[in-house]
Order: sequence, then C-alpha cells, then structure tokens
Amino acid sequence: MTFDASVYADRRRKAADLVRERGLAGLVIGTGAEFAYLTGSWASSHERLTALVIAPDATRVVAPLTDVASLGLERADDIDVVGWRDGDNPYRLVADVLGDGMVGLGSSLTADHVFPLQALLPRTELATDAVAELFMVKDAAELEQIAAAGAAIDRVHEQVPALLQPGRTEREIADDLTRLVLEEHESVAFVIVGSGPNGSNPHHDFSDRVLEVGDPVVVDIGGVLASGYQSDCTRTYVVGGKESAPADFREAYAVLEDAFAAACEAARPGVTAGQLDATARNAIADAGYGEWFTHRLGHGIGLSGHEQPFIIAGSDVVLREGMAFSIEPGIYKPGAWGMRIEDIVWLTDTGVETFNRTRRDLGVTGG
Amino acid sequence: MTFDASVYADRRRKAADLVRERGLAGLVIGTGAEFAYLTGSWASSHERLTALVIAPDATRVVAPLTDVASLGLERADDIDVVGWRDGDNPYRLVADVLGDGMVGLGSSLTADHVFPLQALLPRTELATDAVAELFMVKDAAELEQIAAAGAAIDRVHEQVPALLQPGRTEREIADDLTRLVLEEHESVAFVIVGSGPNGSNPHHDFSDRVLEVGDPVVVDIGGVLASGYQSDCTRTYVVGGKESAPADFREAYAVLEDAFAAACEAARPGVTAGQLDATARNAIADAGYGEWFTHRLGHGIGLSGHEQPFIIAGSDVVLREGMAFSIEPGIYKPGAWGMRIEDIVWLTDTGVETFNRTRRDLGVTGG
Repeated sequence: MTFDASVYADRRRKAADLVRERGLAGLVIGTGAEFAYLTGSWASSHERLTALVIAPDATRVVAPLTDVASLGLERADDIDVVGWRDGDNPYRLVADVLGDGMVGLGSSLTADHVFPLQALLPRTELATDAVAELFMVKDAAELEQIAAAGAAIDRVHEQVPALLQPGRTEREIADDLTRLVLEEHESVAFVIVGSGPNGSNPHHDFSDRVLEVGDPVVVDIGGVLASGYQSDCTRTYVVGGKESAPADFREAYAVLEDAFAAACEAARPGVTAGQLDATARNAIADAGYGEWFTHRLGHGIGLSGHEQPFIIAGSDVVLREGMAFSIEPGIYKPGAWGMRIEDIVWLTDTGVETFNRTRRDLGVTGG
Repeated sequence: MTFDASVYADRRRKAADLVRERGLAGLVIGTGAEFAYLTGSWASSHERLTALVIAPDATRVVAPLTDVASLGLERADDIDVVGWRDGDNPYRLVADVLGDGMVGLGSSLTADHVFPLQALLPRTELATDAVAELFMVKDAAELEQIAAAGAAIDRVHEQVPALLQPGRTEREIADDLTRLVLEEHESVAFVIVGSGPNGSNPHHDFSDRVLEVGDPVVVDIGGVLASGYQSDCTRTYVVGGKESAPADFREAYAVLEDAFAAACEAARPGVTAGQLDATARNAIADAGYGEWFTHRLGHGIGLSGHEQPFIIAGSDVVLREGMAFSIEPGIYKPGAWGMRIEDIVWLTDTGVETFNRTRRDLGVTGG
C-alpha cells in the first residue's frame, strides 16, 4: 500500500458520492489499476472473481477465501470483505449489495466475469468514464510518484546514446535497456528499439536488425515503480550523430520538434483533449506529413500505462489542473524511418510542466 | 510462433467447424492464451482492441494499425487482417463480418471491449466453454511442451531443500526461487513460500517471516517457457527434517499423500471432473480434515496457468485422453500450518501420467 489507508478510504467515499450523484445502483470494479486506486491492493483475479463493489451505502470486496489474507485490507473498516470458496457463486455476493438500478462495471472485468454479472443484474453499463472521473486528476502525492518515475526513466535515457553503437543489434540494446530500466524501477513495462525502417512501426518492439551509421533509432521505454506508478518516455537518436541521418529525416524532425512545442504551449486547463491533439496534428499536417502521424497525441498515465484522458481527435474531455498525460507526436515514413518525442506532462493552473528533462534534439546521439 | 503456421490454421478450421456446429454467428477472441492458441501470436491489446473474429465463412483479425506488423500473421493466408487507426471504430470492423445470430465472446475480452461489442451485436454470450472445447485436449506436440515445463520446474524443486535453512526469510528464499525459475523458463509465473502459519493461506506469496526448525513450508512455483506453456508444481517441506514437524502436521500429511494417490488412481477418461474432485475430497474428509481443504482439486494448464478443465465439485466435464491438469489437494490448519502436493498430470487412454517427478514425501527436506 503506497499511501496511508485513509487515502484509499477517502477515494472510496468519493466513489460512493459519484454513485449517488449519477443515480447508479453501484460500481463493480475488477482487479488492476482501478482496484489498486481504490484499495491500495494489486490483487489479481484470473478466473476467480475478485471485485470491489461500491453501492450508495455499502462497500464490499468479494474475493476467493484463499486470497483474502493477501489483500491487505485489515485497516479498511468501511469495507465488508467477503471470501468465497470454490463452488460458491461469487456473483451472487456482488449482486446482494446492489439495488435494482443501473450498475457500472469497471473496464478491467473480463468477459468471464461480465456475463455472469449481467445474468444477475437487471442493467449494466461500462463504468470506464465514471471511474476515470475519480482518478484522472492526480493529487500532490501521486504527482510526486509520477515525477519520480519520470526522473527514473530520464536516468535510463541518459545512458542510451552510449549504447547505440553501429554493429550492435536492436535486441542487444533492448537487453541492456531492460536491465537499466529494472535498476531504476520495480519492473519493466516495455522496451521499444526501432532502428531505420523498423522505426516506422510505432509499436515495433525490437529485432535482430544490426544498427548502421545514419540509422534513426526510436527508443520508447517505460517501467513501473514499487508504488505502481509508471514511466513512459521516447527519444529519437541517430547512430553516428544527426549529420549522418537522411536529409528528409532531419527536415521532418524539425517539424516534429515544432509540433511537440506547439502542444506543450497549447496545453492548459480548459482546453479539450481533442483540441490539444489538433494542435500537434495541424503542425505536422501543415508541413505535409499528416498521413505519417498515425496515432493519437497522447494518453493519461498513473497506475496504468495508458489511461484517461486520451489525447485524441474528437475528444471533448476538458483538461484540468493535476491531470498527467503523455504528449507524443510522431512521424513515420513507411519502410524508411520513424521519429517520436514523448514526455509525460502534468497540467498546472496555467499551463504544462514536464516530468522528462533529457534533450529532445538529436544532438547528444552517440555512435 | 511455437509451431508451424499450418498448426494454427488447422485450429482455426476446427474453430470455424465449432461455430457452424453450434449455429453461432461467430466467435470474438481477445488477446491472451485463447488468441495465442488460435494464431500463435501473444499480441496484447490493452485499451485498443485486438481481436480474432471467427465466422462460419470468414476469419478476421482486427488490430491497431501500429500493431499489425508485430502480429506475425504474414503466413496466415486464411486471415483477413484489418488495421485500424485511433479515431476509427474497431468494433464495427468486428461486427461487419458477423451475421445476425448469437456471437460468442472469448473470456479474456475486458469490459471496455465487451460493452461496445454488445452495442453493435444483436446477441452475445460467453464463449469460454466453447473455446475450451478447442484447447482442452492437447496434441502430442503440446504435451511435449508441458512435459518440458514439468521437467524445468522439477529441476528447481530439486534445489529447494538446500535453500530452506533456519534463519532465512521467506523473501530471501523467494528471491532465490525467482532466479532459479528464470534459469529454467522464459519468465516467472508465481512464487509462493508459505512457512509455518503462512502456509495455512493457500495463496500467501511470501513475507519477511524467518524460518525456524520444525516449520512446514509450502513451496508452489511456476514459470512460462518460451513456447508459452506453463509449469506449476507444489511440494511441502519441513525445515530441519520431517521429524521436527508438529505431530498433527505429520498425521495430516499421511492423509494428504493418500488423497493425492487416490486422485491419481481414479483419474482416467470417462470420469467427470466433479467425480475426480470428490475422490480426493472424500479421502480428506473421511480423515476429519474436510473443513481444511478449502479449494478445488485442480485446474487445466497449457498456454495459461489456470484453464479448463477445472477439477471442481459439481463439474460434469468428462475427462478425456490428452487433457493436462493439476492434481493438488491441500490441508490448511488455520493459523498453524499448511500442506499441498501438486503435480501436473495428463490423461492417457487408461489412466494418468505425471509431468512432475520429484519426491512427494517429506524425506528430502533440508535445514
């Protein structure tokens, strides 16, 4: 449990307030980041149901009897913890505290739990947006954790240029990065090393491709701190230094830097996620690269690596002070090269501050 | 991809046969073990949908455009791979190949995908049982992988007695075990070291408790091979040797050994999972420990650590040749000690063979 038990009790009170405000019969939250946010526990349920039920006037955790002791909920006086044995019907234990109205189901519940719940509950809906209302705005202690994660991944990126030697493979570099991310985090979330044409696939992980002088290399890495908060940062490097990169890559990189700066400049409370996405997208499209920016501008981050708010075209989610999310424009020339700049930022009352501080130009690249 | 591409194409043909036999409009399978079984790909989807759609006359994979290249489905000629971009509606791409009938949704699809699918499809049901029909019976190549996993975890258990020295903590031993499991597998599935009273919680993982002479210690460990197939094996040890264990523990252990043997003796094609569970449960109950055997007898294993068939009271699933599952009776004296014996076994045409071969008595315990 990262914070004091009272922090989680307070979050559950806010969740119950939200249930009442929205006129719901309750929320049913499966294990994962939403459950951890509301309980401090990273229980995992697999095929056996573990769930937090928040009704207007009752809070219950239903979990396998064998897992109850591991939940660490001894100090959560407001929670009625009910253990069930193999052969019992755990869904009945959930339905028992819920009235007849609409029940919101958390995003992480898997179909093998959703269907049995739907069979017992008169009406259900997806609760992703409702639950996001609870966690989207981070408090000071959470921002401190996300800042610590940002500093941790920065310390890894500082070591990347020295790794990018011609003749090494993406896999060798990814192995080094896995070790370095682990030195700074509790676990590794992901490691992407996309060199040359592999960089043009934004979700390429790594391969046996050998690095050559002149290769642009997209390095996108993230880890999970012991507190559960995650880091996520992308820098683009050039093997042998930026002068050896293809001319069209260098031209596009200047556009990418401008798009990143434009988004940071535009981000402030009151702007919608869709408007923010458009800021970077327009900067890239105006320079003629619109077709090569193939993904959303960013995503929230906290106890999960990708969460709301999603910074995506058309979103009317209004950005608020205390939200933490990525700004990560990219340009991908099919079969040739890719580039992306990604920082995790948080909204202050007037603008944006970044949790990632390493250089964003191509100047420090080694090789 | 562990097996030849033709193996997965054959599995998809059988899935389409099953869709036709059951009169379904189709199956929608989310990422995870079911997806890997049918495609060979361990894609992960998170909040962005990746799914395999099997309709009577069409097979489609819907995935984020950024992930398509990583799926490794170039040789899957029968699959129509459709990439989508942020802002597209991927659920429409799923619904487009499905007719008006009942659609089965795979167990791993999360609520944030289930609800949008339900909004577009006229009728949906949980497809867990249908999909299990496809993977419950393992072929020879799969059994070879599960055997390799069993041998791998056996090599770890052989090193456990030397680790269980008085004065060491569960955590220190778990750290050693994590390293040893990793030496024999691609990744660690779980490590449980439950000493003394901690052993009485079947899902306790490990703590800072210091081992003392006379402590029974439940060690339940599992890993994942590069092929995706998993190991899972429990042995119970006594620090300082079995003579130092509490007398009531030793008495109960003899009952546990008999219950394990009774289940192995009873397991054969044609027996139901519920009957098999009863065999061990009755042996334990008849000796007066029924209240302390708090979980099902076992679970299937393969590309996931827990899968069908579940060996559980009341199940009328008929066991068939080629099924692989755990037999793992346990007795847990609240606040005092616990014990469990777990092997992964597979059904031959006449009985059962085990993939785990280390000693099941308490005789080899070190300390």
